[in-house]
Amino acid sequence: MEFGTPVILSCSASIVGKKEGEGPLGQLFDQVGQEDMFGAKTWEEAESTLQKEAVALCLQKSGVKLKDVRYLFAGDLLGQSIASSFGLAQYETPLFGLYGACSTSGLSITLGAITVAAGLAEKVMCVTSSHFASAEKEFRYPLEYGNQRPLSASWTVTGGGAFLLSAKRGEKDRAQISAVTPGKIVDYGLKDSMNMGACMAPAACDTIYQHLQDFGRKPEDYDKIVTGDLGYVGQQALLNLLSQKGIELGNRHMDCGIEMFDQNTQDTHAGGSGCGCAATVLSAFLLKKLEEGEWSRILFVPTGALLSKVSFNEGNTVPGIAHGVVIERIPGAGKKD
Amino acid sequence: MEFGTPVILSCSASIVGKKEGEGPLGQLFDQVGQEDMFGAKTWEEAESTLQKEAVALCLQKSGVKLKDVRYLFAGDLLGQSIASSFGLAQYETPLFGLYGACSTSGLSITLGAITVAAGLAEKVMCVTSSHFASAEKEFRYPLEYGNQRPLSASWTVTGGGAFLLSAKRGEKDRAQISAVTPGKIVDYGLKDSMNMGACMAPAACDTIYQHLQDFGRKPEDYDKIVTGDLGYVGQQALLNLLSQKGIELGNRHMDCGIEMFDQNTQDTHAGGSGCGCAATVLSAFLLKKLEEGEWSRILFVPTGALLSKVSFNEGNTVPGIAHGVVIERIPGAGKKD
Repeated sequence: MEFGTPVILSCSASIVGKKEGEGPLGQLFDQVGQEDMFGAKTWEEAESTLQKEAVALCLQKSGVKLKDVRYLFAGDLLGQSIASSFGLAQYETPLFGLYGACSTSGLSITLGAITVAAGLAEKVMCVTSSHFASAEKEFRYPLEYGNQRPLSASWTVTGGGAFLLSAKRGEKDRAQISAVTPGKIVDYGLKDSMNMGACMAPAACDTIYQHLQDFGRKPEDYDKIVTGDLGYVGQQALLNLLSQKGIELGNRHMDCGIEMFDQNTQDTHAGGSGCGCAATVLSAFLLKKLEEGEWSRILFVPTGALLSKVSFNEGNTVPGIAHGVVIERIPGAGKKD
Repeated sequence: MEFGTPVILSCSASIVGKKEGEGPLGQLFDQVGQEDMFGAKTWEEAESTLQKEAVALCLQKSGVKLKDVRYLFAGDLLGQSIASSFGLAQYETPLFGLYGACSTSGLSITLGAITVAAGLAEKVMCVTSSHFASAEKEFRYPLEYGNQRPLSASWTVTGGGAFLLSAKRGEKDRAQISAVTPGKIVDYGLKDSMNMGACMAPAACDTIYQHLQDFGRKPEDYDKIVTGDLGYVGQQALLNLLSQKGIELGNRHMDCGIEMFDQNTQDTHAGGSGCGCAATVLSAFLLKKLEEGEWSRILFVPTGALLSKVSFNEGNTVPGIAHGVVIERIPGAGKKD
């Protein structure tokens, strides 16, 4: 899908946990929590707080009033997307609930952009989150169990990101969205919930390949092609799969999960993951590079692993999905031009 | 949101379980299963089969080829929407994963219609499902536990519905979608997962009231205002709440959950519920009334209860959400005009 008039990404905000704040991107996030409960009584409530705060920060940074935000597009990793339901209820704004596992930031921005492009809303807010502790409890083992994590496991990012999309240009716009490539479910039959990177790489490959075909573009047309949370294991799988199709990404590939943590000192194994990973890295790091003029166009491809504890325990596979969003520097924007 | 050019609801299909087939609408569904496993090994897989079959039936009835369906908009009640992920993977069509609890049929039709209205897709398919056994296991007690159900409990419908939306008129179109009113989360603080009707009624009230305000309409402008699955308890609550705001629905109100089962003989207590309830009743019954010219315009308002077993067990409330869709008879359509 190509938008005739690009949709403006006016503003964004990110909030992360303590560990994420200690990582290589730590200085860039808008807010870093000092403890991972964020003042809540349960991990799930803590995750709801991340969504609530991300929206509040984004409103504050943009100076836009809540009543001017027509719709919310939100989702998270928890069963029945409860982080969104309980985090966003107080905003009393019509809500589109979404589920795309860790690809939800791409899904929400895609649907938000479609709605703005259709002329059906002037401004919408897209918000996603994940929380290490609530995700481990939801998908693997509660932290109290103290299980050992294999090196292929990724570390779910505690963080929330919110994005304000607008039909019209403003003064402090961060970037613009010119096209999207929604993804299909791709299932290579992998069953390891401790190796999400490998489960999602085929979906990322499919979406990136399809995108380049649809638009008649090459990797060189992008400064970076950024996946959500493949991590080190998934990155290698993606590069190999694309190479088999004759596409060499090389250094043009970047992965939010790899950027988030320092593998050597933070004990995060394969890298960061979760809806919150791609969302916070996009807000704090990727959009900054576009704003500063270091990059002019990226393909943002958050990846999701479609499993639940029920499907996993029933011996099912872990299919993947990835949604591609083309994000560009605002033409004629300030600095470094 | 009002669509300048209405989006065409070209075709639809419904598949239900044995009990639903024995209800008052039994003869109207496209397919009735003889056993509720639908040939699968688990309840979740059975529910996936409902989505897969609903899409297959809809393609078959419409004569449209899968490759001409640009996107799927799908969701279900299970954690991480696994019924959709596993049911729809084989179609290899870009998928937007949604979560709106039992309001998902309204959510999927709304977002599908927006995408078509934006001119970004010629044809899209919206599909939702629920299954009595997988839902009881997901939200309350597995059937093997044999717990007793209070009279306020509803009976999750085993069924799947698929809707083909198009930008252009065809020969056998069922209806058209002229406007939508996406809902907010409304939380009255109720906590009883065995009384979903009462939990969702405030959200239905809010969406219906907001819709009538936004469009400057009265209940009389609709032949029916049809909620998804409030059941007998929720219906009473809705009528009372609207009455307090000066709006009398009276006999103009209809509820898919009430229509689905015979309360006296089917032991379903408050009525049917689940994503599959509103979806299958819309496909089999409501669209038929519009086609036959008995009605010319309805407001379809599927209602969802935003709980999960985690939030419920942590003592949280059950907030509700409801999405309104205005569905009209195709102007100048055949029979009884």
